[in-house]
This record gives sequence, C-alpha cells and structure tokens, in this order.
Amino acid sequence: MSRLLQDVVEELSKLPGIGRRTALRLAMHLLRMEPQSVTEMTRSIDRFRRDIRRCACCNNLSDEELCPVCADPERDRSTVCVVEQVADVLSIEHTHQYRGLYHVLGGVISPMQGIAPSDLTIDLLCGRLAGGEVREVILAIPASVEGETTRFYLMNRLKPYAGVKITAIARGIGFGDELEYVDDLTIAHALLNRREVEQSE
Amino acid sequence: MSRLLQDVVEELSKLPGIGRRTALRLAMHLLRMEPQSVTEMTRSIDRFRRDIRRCACCNNLSDEELCPVCADPERDRSTVCVVEQVADVLSIEHTHQYRGLYHVLGGVISPMQGIAPSDLTIDLLCGRLAGGEVREVILAIPASVEGETTRFYLMNRLKPYAGVKITAIARGIGFGDELEYVDDLTIAHALLNRREVEQSE
Repeated sequence: MSRLLQDVVEELSKLPGIGRRTALRLAMHLLRMEPQSVTEMTRSIDRFRRDIRRCACCNNLSDEELCPVCADPERDRSTVCVVEQVADVLSIEHTHQYRGLYHVLGGVISPMQGIAPSDLTIDLLCGRLAGGEVREVILAIPASVEGETTRFYLMNRLKPYAGVKITAIARGIGFGDELEYVDDLTIAHALLNRREVEQSE
Repeated sequence: MSRLLQDVVEELSKLPGIGRRTALRLAMHLLRMEPQSVTEMTRSIDRFRRDIRRCACCNNLSDEELCPVCADPERDRSTVCVVEQVADVLSIEHTHQYRGLYHVLGGVISPMQGIAPSDLTIDLLCGRLAGGEVREVILAIPASVEGETTRFYLMNRLKPYAGVKITAIARGIGFGDELEYVDDLTIAHALLNRREVEQSE
C-alpha cells in the first residue's frame, strides 16, 4: 500500500465515527477534489485549531475576546441562557427566537466521568450575575441524571443573587412527535404540566 | 457563530457522508486534540493530495513511478488481477493469499454515468499483455450490470492475446453467510456451480 495513502487513512481514522473503510472512501474523494479545495479545507482546519478561543464572557467559541453574541449591542443583556455545550447555542440561535445572551458550561457534572463543578464555567457565570445587569437565568441543560445534578448544584450557587429569576425551558411532547414513540417520563411530565386551552384559540 | 467555526464546518461538510451536524461534532473533536496532532493530520492530507500518483504499470495509487506491488521482485509477474478500484486491491492484499500483480481499471463501463471504455485503463492493460510475460488475467470486477458489460467488453479486447488465459473469481455463498439472507441470483449461481465433495475431505 502506498505510504501516502496509508498515512492519510491512519490520520483520518483518528476522527470519531470514522473507521478505516470510511477513511479510505474519504481519501478517494480527496483525489477527486480540486487540489485548491483540499488546501482550503486543511487551511480552515489548521486556522480553526490554532486561532479559535473561548469568549471571555460566556465561554462560547469565539474568534475575538468576545463572541458575536456577547459583542452584539442589540442583544438583551438582562437574560442569560445556560447551556451544556457550544452546539446547543447553535441550535437555539438557529430558531431566531432568542435575543438574550448565553452561558456555555462546557459540560454537566458527572462523577462517573470525573467532571466536577470546578471543571465547568460556574464561577464565570456567578461573576456575570454579580454585575447586577442580569434579571433572568434560563436553564437549558439536558434532563439527564447529570443534567439534574447540575441544575440542583446551580440552583444553590445562584441562590445568593436574589434579584435574578431562574427559569427552565419547557419539557413536553415535541411538535411532530408521535405519543407512541415518546418516552414515559416525558409523557408523564407533559400530562402533569398540562395547560388550559383558551377558548379564543 | 464564530467565523473560524463556520468555515471549518462548511469545509468538512463538503466531504461525502458528512452533514453539518457531524462536521460540528468533528470540529469539537479537533479542539480536544493536541494542536500537533491536528497539524499532522492536515499535513498528511495535503501531502497525499499533492504527491500521490498512479502506478505507470497498473494504475494503483503510488508514491513512486511504480506502486509497491509492481516494484516488488517477489511477486508473480505472470498473473494479473483486474479490479475496478484501488480499494479492491487493498481488500485482496489484506487476505495475503494473492502473489500476482494487479490492474486497476478506475471504474466500470456505465453509459448511465457517462463512463466509456476509453475512460478506463484498458489500453494500458492491453499494453501489458503485449509484453508477453502475462499468462493469466483474473477478472475480479463486480457482478453488476455495469460489471458484466465491462467483462464482456474486456473479453473481446483480450481475445487477440491467445496465450493468456482469462479467469474470473468464484461467485457463491460467502463463508459465514446464511442462506436466508443471500440474494436469489447468488444462490441460483451457487447451486448451478456446485462441485463434488471428495470422499477424503
């Protein structure tokens, strides 16, 4: 086997979800791409790994000291949505329904995986609340055991900031979900938290 | 969204089988990798795209004028196994059961996809046979409609080389395959081509 091919297959196989077969298929695809396009791809990877930073305010990925959301004067600085990871910010931004700021914890508390509260950006969050500008913290962390542990811990840490309302995103049946396929816990929760339908609706 | 993140997600999404969600997951993985490892990966991609060549003899991928198989004096130069693509060479080499040479067609004839005989390395194969050293050509091309078309075309093109025996790899039920899940054509072919079991076995 060609040394160059062997190297590229080995390197690509190190990525998650990419086995040797997929790596080989990707390598063959690279050959069909314009050399210029391949260079653009590898340059963007190198630049990303070298220059990306964490936003000093919310811990989101950022090109500058502050991420585009924190730097945007149009965003509502009184609301902070707390999420587990960067991908969650993108999912919420994608809806175009949220105009507040974010706070990326960088994980959830998990003794099993050795993730302690001190590994998360909770101190950074408390620092933001100490500023006095924030009126509401929305918890948008997963409803897993680890997520609940994190929520419980956060509630305690945020207690001192009396003027800050803590809310959580609504749990329930998703639009388009069929009851048949929804888990018991979600159905039970959705029943308990049923709301009256207004006659005008 | 950070410009650097956006760029890397866009570039990775251009690869086959990688959507925006997977690209984002790969990007987050790049952040967890050592910067050095990321550089090694992108360098190996760039080197591969820039320096890889086609073996002048068999059209396999190669670092040099001749690929490692063609350059190996230990290989049996009287046998040439004709395959569709580079991955097929790797699959056969992986068995360590074949000591002859290869010939990579670079595809199969497909009027639907606009692949004509002239797009394949058939002239190169004929040139090899004209040398007189080759005694057997093993066809190991897929049993699809396109593969059969290619086989038929090849049989005609190879007819002038009277001293060369043409064979095809055996079709049948794979080891470990359950009849229940094998397609009809394969079962029918395997029945027709049944062979007597020797008493000593």
